[in-house]
Amino acid sequence: MRDGSGSGTAVSRRDLLSLIGTVAGSAAMYQATASLGFAADSGYRGPIALSGDVRGASVLILGAGLAGMTAAFELRKAGYNVAVLEFNLRAGGRNWTLRGGDTYTELGGFTQACEFEAGQYFNPGPWRIPYHHRALLDYCKRLNVALEPFVELNHNAYLHAADAFGGRPQRIREIKADFQGHVAELLAKTTAQGKLDEAVSVEDKERLLQALRSWGALDQDYAYKKNLISARVRGYAKGPGGGLDGGVGAAPVAGEPIELADILKSELWEYLRNFSQLDFQTTLFQPTGGMDMIGKAFANEVGDLIRYDAKVTRIAQDDGGVTVTYVDPKAPASPPQLAKADWCFCTIPLSILSQIPIDVGPRMKAAIDAVPYASAVKIGLQFTRRFWEEDEAIYGGISYTDLPIRQIAYPNSGLNRRGRGVLLGAYIFEGSNAYEFAAMPPAERVARAVALGAQVHPQYPAEFENGVAVAWQRVPFSLGCAGYWTEKARAEHYGDLCQIDGRIVLAGEHASNLPAWQEGAILSSLDAVTRLHHRVVKT
Amino acid sequence: MRDGSGSGTAVSRRDLLSLIGTVAGSAAMYQATASLGFAADSGYRGPIALSGDVRGASVLILGAGLAGMTAAFELRKAGYNVAVLEFNLRAGGRNWTLRGGDTYTELGGFTQACEFEAGQYFNPGPWRIPYHHRALLDYCKRLNVALEPFVELNHNAYLHAADAFGGRPQRIREIKADFQGHVAELLAKTTAQGKLDEAVSVEDKERLLQALRSWGALDQDYAYKKNLISARVRGYAKGPGGGLDGGVGAAPVAGEPIELADILKSELWEYLRNFSQLDFQTTLFQPTGGMDMIGKAFANEVGDLIRYDAKVTRIAQDDGGVTVTYVDPKAPASPPQLAKADWCFCTIPLSILSQIPIDVGPRMKAAIDAVPYASAVKIGLQFTRRFWEEDEAIYGGISYTDLPIRQIAYPNSGLNRRGRGVLLGAYIFEGSNAYEFAAMPPAERVARAVALGAQVHPQYPAEFENGVAVAWQRVPFSLGCAGYWTEKARAEHYGDLCQIDGRIVLAGEHASNLPAWQEGAILSSLDAVTRLHHRVVKT
Repeated sequence: MRDGSGSGTAVSRRDLLSLIGTVAGSAAMYQATASLGFAADSGYRGPIALSGDVRGASVLILGAGLAGMTAAFELRKAGYNVAVLEFNLRAGGRNWTLRGGDTYTELGGFTQACEFEAGQYFNPGPWRIPYHHRALLDYCKRLNVALEPFVELNHNAYLHAADAFGGRPQRIREIKADFQGHVAELLAKTTAQGKLDEAVSVEDKERLLQALRSWGALDQDYAYKKNLISARVRGYAKGPGGGLDGGVGAAPVAGEPIELADILKSELWEYLRNFSQLDFQTTLFQPTGGMDMIGKAFANEVGDLIRYDAKVTRIAQDDGGVTVTYVDPKAPASPPQLAKADWCFCTIPLSILSQIPIDVGPRMKAAIDAVPYASAVKIGLQFTRRFWEEDEAIYGGISYTDLPIRQIAYPNSGLNRRGRGVLLGAYIFEGSNAYEFAAMPPAERVARAVALGAQVHPQYPAEFENGVAVAWQRVPFSLGCAGYWTEKARAEHYGDLCQIDGRIVLAGEHASNLPAWQEGAILSSLDAVTRLHHRVVKT
Repeated sequence: MRDGSGSGTAVSRRDLLSLIGTVAGSAAMYQATASLGFAADSGYRGPIALSGDVRGASVLILGAGLAGMTAAFELRKAGYNVAVLEFNLRAGGRNWTLRGGDTYTELGGFTQACEFEAGQYFNPGPWRIPYHHRALLDYCKRLNVALEPFVELNHNAYLHAADAFGGRPQRIREIKADFQGHVAELLAKTTAQGKLDEAVSVEDKERLLQALRSWGALDQDYAYKKNLISARVRGYAKGPGGGLDGGVGAAPVAGEPIELADILKSELWEYLRNFSQLDFQTTLFQPTGGMDMIGKAFANEVGDLIRYDAKVTRIAQDDGGVTVTYVDPKAPASPPQLAKADWCFCTIPLSILSQIPIDVGPRMKAAIDAVPYASAVKIGLQFTRRFWEEDEAIYGGISYTDLPIRQIAYPNSGLNRRGRGVLLGAYIFEGSNAYEFAAMPPAERVARAVALGAQVHPQYPAEFENGVAVAWQRVPFSLGCAGYWTEKARAEHYGDLCQIDGRIVLAGEHASNLPAWQEGAILSSLDAVTRLHHRVVKT
């Protein structure tokens, strides 16, 4: 970069160094270095390095989900002989995406064929990645998995309760802004009346009033009411326009806020909490093209180690090693096979593992048996057009309802495009509705999701094309969506679950403090891999 | 979809219709239809249809920004003879993206050559699109401009004040959660003590307490304090881990919330307002690959109508038509050219137009002269690596500071990728800092942005490579970033600005109630096009 008398060049590093002293003190520049505490809050401390001679040790990994494939990837790199047994015909486990042409047979025998248009997909399992899931994000980077933002909070999506507001869905922005505004007004008025004088100093009182006015969109009198101040957060009755706006005038018009009493009675405030939770804070991600891009990327690395269609029926160990018996789940009458190794790295969900004979001590066995699995139902629905975008300006994010479907989630990819779209038409986590839906044949689950969803989006019946419904209690490889630890069970059993028992170590989201998250599976795996390796190189 | 005895098929529309009656009353399904009020809040009412015989009328459009190109696109479709004069050698106007290889010469003669790596870019002008900008989104859809989410609020980005917290940037999630938690606690305690009894009914009092506990992350005693309840919104001191987490234990550990008094004193609460504003609410968009993808898509449609390098010097009209004089800005000594038409559709920014002789009545002339233009400075900085992601888990979004750079915005594309990245290293809108930066040579602006930004990101000096700085006061084609209407000026002049004066009509963001937004330019253009057309087919 130079002046106009010569050819232009941008500011280079060298130019900068000569200028930088001129414009700022160097002390200021570095003052923050020590105190940022980079990523101190994550359980991930960067790629593991397993050094030392493993002397040809072999490890048999059970399960080619993210925990199992993480172990396979790291253990092979460290020099181990690694083999993996996997129940399914694909890798990934609960890291799973359904697309047109896929079929899925659930426990009980119902088979669904997904009929989505090419390019459309639905993630029956995990579907979002928080920014603080450092281990998973690091593997995505190392394995070249492209990510895009996942929208959790969409201010223009809905909160809906069948018995509130005459059954009409409310825009999240209205409930959110109005609740906050009313709270700010109540506290500001209380503060101004001197009722907080014990709790707040005179100096802070003035600052608090200022802050509440700004944060709550209050007017000069600390009122939250119909005006352009509140309209700028809750939305306009008529938005600002251009020119003379067809003669009606281009000036924006404010709408009437919802009364606090009505919000309180509706219980729609309950959903606001979801959006502030750490696990759902911006920036969240999804892999471009479907969550299983992660499983596929791992399988690109370790797929050659995996034996598919292998259902484990017995896990034995003695001083000499481990012996795992398995059968082909599609040919249960065929003779059992045996796999042997020095060590067994078992990532089978506890819901399944508790049914498999395994040679571990009573404490680990008690831990394996102690953890119930959560029920969850997810339903993907394809529609002829993206009416939620076209008609309602809802791009991505989630609407919440007290109907049994609980959530409607909008696709976060292909935004503003013409053509078909696939919604998450229900996400029912635990509770009686999850069991009720799991008890229905899949077709009825889909039909019910369409019928109920029509209360939120009346376009449903006219635009619906086809759907798939996954009830996790009926998923043959996990019998539930994730370990559902109580505090009591965790206090009693978690430590035992995570020990190395002879030649067997367990890993997976169930062996983590991030239940139901892929990050939990990976962190658990890395911790178990590291401990196993230390034992191997020590002995 | 069928049972396990046959091949699977998904639920089709026909299957659904037979099931749907079984599982829900049809009344419930349609109840919401009438009341949703689709997009009633937007000034855009769908694509315009200009019917009627235009009898060969010609329109000369001045300016090939979004307002001018929207008019060219719609008027040609309606049958007009259309020509466009454009000052620059490219279309788009303030819809503008700088990439490696681009050069830019500002008023005063400084030329910058952008040295960004291929694939990196920086939008000196508009950079985000709200979900409620229905007209712009509709053109993006019709012109096949791919969009991706733009992250405004990133909970893990920073709020920073040089004099607060020892100059250490604070995570947005901490300030946001702690302020809300303290407010909830104060109001809950006041409510519980009966101090709100005049304002809130007995029934609502209990509901309010419940709501505040949920929304504010309060404990059973309505306290906001160090525990896992607050940690789940503000973040952990140590996050949950996997297995035995290297022996340190996998259980999460809560951190200490920031005191309300400290937040109030820091004034960091001022920034929280930004994130709830309608204009910055999720879901926001950016075009994939740079904002100028929109300008380019328009130019694909109407580029053949545009004469580039045409600087307008005089706009004359009489009963017979309009005559516009223009010169080549790069050869000011060459003879002036004339362009004639029946009508003139002028989108030249008022900052420029007020300096051009134009035959309009005194009221429109007064309006043209009445609107000052906002100053703004944006600086793009390329770094060797995406340290904000790798070191600090900041993916997209914006950090705010009270330093003169005011904002640091992180790229919302290429997230979690290896390699270089370009930050918005300053976005200074109005105020003395904008003038101060505009007065510096570009190289010094960049150097100063790096020096100041290092107070937020100490990695800056080690990782910086090159940068470009656009000070809008010095942008030759607009002399400012947007019309900066006061309420008084709008009351007095806006109506006059938007009238058709003889054969001349004005359009652009300046002729809208959405100043500085691309949506304003398009809505203004559509309104002016429609009114002009009505006049043409009527006369």
